[in-house]
Amino acid sequence: MMAERQVEIDRVEREWQHLSRLVDPELPGWSRTGFSDADRAARDWLLRQMREAGLEAVQDAAGNLVGYLEGDMPGAPDIVIGSHSDTVPGGGRFDGIVGVLGAIEVARTLTRSGARLRRGLRIVDFANEEGNPQGVKLVGSRAAAGSLDAHALGSTDPEGVTLATLMERAGLRPDEVSRARWKARDIAAYIELHIEQGPHLEQSSAHIGIVTSICGISTFSLDVRGRRDHAGTMPMNVRQDAMCCAADAVLAVREVAASGAGAVGTVGQVTTSSPLTNTISEQATVTGEFRSPDLAALQDMQARFAQRTAHLDELHRTQSALTWGHFDAPTPMDERLSRLAHAASTDLGYDTLQLYSGATHDGVAIADLAPTAMIFIPSRDGRSHCPEEWSDFEDVERGINVLLETVLRIDASL
Amino acid sequence: MMAERQVEIDRVEREWQHLSRLVDPELPGWSRTGFSDADRAARDWLLRQMREAGLEAVQDAAGNLVGYLEGDMPGAPDIVIGSHSDTVPGGGRFDGIVGVLGAIEVARTLTRSGARLRRGLRIVDFANEEGNPQGVKLVGSRAAAGSLDAHALGSTDPEGVTLATLMERAGLRPDEVSRARWKARDIAAYIELHIEQGPHLEQSSAHIGIVTSICGISTFSLDVRGRRDHAGTMPMNVRQDAMCCAADAVLAVREVAASGAGAVGTVGQVTTSSPLTNTISEQATVTGEFRSPDLAALQDMQARFAQRTAHLDELHRTQSALTWGHFDAPTPMDERLSRLAHAASTDLGYDTLQLYSGATHDGVAIADLAPTAMIFIPSRDGRSHCPEEWSDFEDVERGINVLLETVLRIDASL
Repeated sequence: MMAERQVEIDRVEREWQHLSRLVDPELPGWSRTGFSDADRAARDWLLRQMREAGLEAVQDAAGNLVGYLEGDMPGAPDIVIGSHSDTVPGGGRFDGIVGVLGAIEVARTLTRSGARLRRGLRIVDFANEEGNPQGVKLVGSRAAAGSLDAHALGSTDPEGVTLATLMERAGLRPDEVSRARWKARDIAAYIELHIEQGPHLEQSSAHIGIVTSICGISTFSLDVRGRRDHAGTMPMNVRQDAMCCAADAVLAVREVAASGAGAVGTVGQVTTSSPLTNTISEQATVTGEFRSPDLAALQDMQARFAQRTAHLDELHRTQSALTWGHFDAPTPMDERLSRLAHAASTDLGYDTLQLYSGATHDGVAIADLAPTAMIFIPSRDGRSHCPEEWSDFEDVERGINVLLETVLRIDASL
Repeated sequence: MMAERQVEIDRVEREWQHLSRLVDPELPGWSRTGFSDADRAARDWLLRQMREAGLEAVQDAAGNLVGYLEGDMPGAPDIVIGSHSDTVPGGGRFDGIVGVLGAIEVARTLTRSGARLRRGLRIVDFANEEGNPQGVKLVGSRAAAGSLDAHALGSTDPEGVTLATLMERAGLRPDEVSRARWKARDIAAYIELHIEQGPHLEQSSAHIGIVTSICGISTFSLDVRGRRDHAGTMPMNVRQDAMCCAADAVLAVREVAASGAGAVGTVGQVTTSSPLTNTISEQATVTGEFRSPDLAALQDMQARFAQRTAHLDELHRTQSALTWGHFDAPTPMDERLSRLAHAASTDLGYDTLQLYSGATHDGVAIADLAPTAMIFIPSRDGRSHCPEEWSDFEDVERGINVLLETVLRIDASL
């Protein structure tokens, strides 16, 4: 069953080069933000690639590209493979893109080799995984899973533009997103090939990672109230400086996260009521997040951070209000699918590692619908969401091989 | 010589009440920012008060109100008393105002009692001591001292409006500020009555403070470069997080300042390249200041903070560039004048303390021109530059008495 089907990695690299040119010239890095002109141009081009690969391909109301390769057993649930082709502003050329081009190449390799699957194969490029100024992530995969609700579509950017309007401007039909919804009974499995975006595979000299769990995320906002005073005249030891408490909170996030295995914590920004250096800050806001692959560990970080902020209030004579925002529980990957993918990888002779994903993926939305697994390839220096993001094409090829082999084994296990 | 001249504190309080109503209704607190409509209305009214007090009073090209009470010895250098009537945005009702109303009341008390000075007495309300969006402080006193140069007048606010334009819009003649300049040989002494704006007098239950030195200020900007990475996937121990280094720098400012006697250090704001919580900060900027009444101590804080930031770069694997901005050396007050004021205060039966001023005052500009002294009265809870700013009128009365008595003693010491 193995090795006779050869993926054409040179062709994938040429397609990758083409996509790398479809970027927003006004943003840094390789930016192709969701629903932008560059994103639209890339999707038009990818739709043509799907069709040239022999797929029946359409764009749905949410902007997802879905290509279909019919199987021999009509009515059997489909195998779905794919990822997303949008990027964060200032992002790189591999995050998501490898999984979309890899999925198309899997379909092409099957067709080229004359192989027939029993199940239908769905190739998907999910719309706007990375989110938008409206603060909604996984737009396309949530539409497919039926969880892109009116609240999400009504979310606004700082100028008051809703996500629905953003999608309409890109020629989509947000009022019909319910038609983009997939039925759980139609999907046997979802497998996503992706770059690791972290340093673990590279550090272990492993070729392939099989994801055990996608980290949960808990975002927060800490509102610190201090006392406005003259910065020249109020002695250090009696100040109620909201900025100092905020700074200590930033370091508390770091400390709380550093003590948990696989956990991370990050502060995005600190804002203050007055930027003047001659006035002691009356108010400061710290926004940040914690992530962990383990639910209990995530909840433990929440509890410890809350304790720390209370302690910091005593220290700085401030009053803080901690508000927890968005909470996503960790998403465990399907064990059976992950074992199949792991075996496929080791049988191909690749050094294979189990690891969790610190980043969110479309798999989080799709896991509500169907058994889901993720295949990772190494990222140079673990870097991602930056222009320097890189994966070697030898690793991309290995990833596509594992994806193809996993698809074949799922199909065979029917 | 003492006690027969009674200041009318009820009248001063009524004038204070009137001024408290001349504020910008769109700003919080008791805001009368320099060159605003409220500031203009207050100056028109104060000019009338000066004239009603029997002073020859004019507004000069820079916006300073100068009232004059002739002395018996033409040609002898004048004694100057006064302060400023503008406020910071969101400020209070005493900072500066006490010194202006107090100076007018000194002139009125002298006239009322039939006392004649040998020297001329100049009553001044300096324009825009608190500064403007163009970042220029002590506008009027710098014009009087001849140090409001073309560079200061050309300073722009974030919208590109120059200080000169701001002054023109208030009906002034910035192109003629050189005509507002005072001659050093015409000034025997400058004495300013002001609120302490800090807690020392209140904590010591003292009535009056005589200032030994006005703190020097050194402002800085710390530009921290980190590495942009995915916040979900980059482990805590290999991050190069500019935000974490910035937070540690905020606390380093606090620590460096806390170890120096009479020293303070304050961070105004921390900005970052990206507010997203899912991206590790590539860049952060910390802006702040140090103050000390002692030049060597101020320079020592600069050196220690520079060392600390270098150490923080090692800790966080970041690259920081520390830029020192504005530097004002501490301004010692005139010893002879201060001794006269101190003796006047104790002879009036007031508990009198020597202390430094953490805040900048018009005296910093005028000290270049003439011997300068400052008389402080207590501030409740040490609070200032906030709506809660308060001084009891018993203390205001004591302050005016000391100012009057000091003027008489300087005049007698001719």
